[in-house]
Amino acid sequence: MRRKGLICIHTGNGKGKTTAAIGAAIRAAGQGLKVLILQFMKGQKNIGEMKAFAETSLPITLKQYGHAVFFQSRACEPIDIHKAHLGLQAFQKAMESEAYDLIVLDEINMAIDFGLLQIDEVMAVIKQKPPGLHLILTGRNAKKPLMEIADLVTEMKEIKHHYYKGVKAQKGIEF
Amino acid sequence: MRRKGLICIHTGNGKGKTTAAIGAAIRAAGQGLKVLILQFMKGQKNIGEMKAFAETSLPITLKQYGHAVFFQSRACEPIDIHKAHLGLQAFQKAMESEAYDLIVLDEINMAIDFGLLQIDEVMAVIKQKPPGLHLILTGRNAKKPLMEIADLVTEMKEIKHHYYKGVKAQKGIEF
Repeated sequence: MRRKGLICIHTGNGKGKTTAAIGAAIRAAGQGLKVLILQFMKGQKNIGEMKAFAETSLPITLKQYGHAVFFQSRACEPIDIHKAHLGLQAFQKAMESEAYDLIVLDEINMAIDFGLLQIDEVMAVIKQKPPGLHLILTGRNAKKPLMEIADLVTEMKEIKHHYYKGVKAQKGIEF
Repeated sequence: MRRKGLICIHTGNGKGKTTAAIGAAIRAAGQGLKVLILQFMKGQKNIGEMKAFAETSLPITLKQYGHAVFFQSRACEPIDIHKAHLGLQAFQKAMESEAYDLIVLDEINMAIDFGLLQIDEVMAVIKQKPPGLHLILTGRNAKKPLMEIADLVTEMKEIKHHYYKGVKAQKGIEF
């Protein structure tokens, strides 16, 4: 029986959207699947997952298509739109290569929500998905057309957060 | 400045609670933190995360305190209660050893919810947590006393699930 490739979405305002995608990548790689992670709107190299993947021989490739400085702390520029489109092109080429079993489009929902990518162009690329390929899309404010074609949608909902108690982001836990 | 150890809870009826903890473990290990994962109510060896960790040199140790057969598919037995308590003991010893920076108590909420562990005995152990140690507790139906001491609580909420569409669990994605 040919594998049914799933489309999974992690959305919501809570923690764990990217983290669960990283966990899914590890789980998949442990089962012998080849994994590509494309990070939109991210360019920071000092992240734990990147360091960890570099130290392993697991079949996980991580590429970034964004600034090192987090987007929300500065104005949107044409370069952001350009980089997001490079990410989308990389996704299309990766599907055509048939070299991967799971592709994670990390923060693509946010890239759409911020207007870096148009929902229609993203949908047009996703519709070329080979039947056996698994996809995970992360980011808050996932758009309705994506939710509709997804097999699995999880909302990560923030119930309580220590930022409110004045604790700074912790290395190793949050990045 | 001494590190503030966080208590994080992943709860809710959706996917991604354990997966996000696995991702957090990878991220933490990538930043040089030593990680211990104690899985309650789980004993299945054919899981992707176990295979993946075995292939890496990352400082992540995974131990299981449950049956190979998933608990909900059979009746609760005294051995389940015993194994859950071995897990709780292992947690206490791991804290005393000060050998870890992050300890994941995977499905401990479910172990409490099923009555294998009492909330009071779990609280008594957690109160011995060294200040710098990070904890992640996963499982649905997290109890109120745990939610109260947590720094960060995320609810993974199921919005849409392909089981409803008659697709079987996919190797590499769900286990």
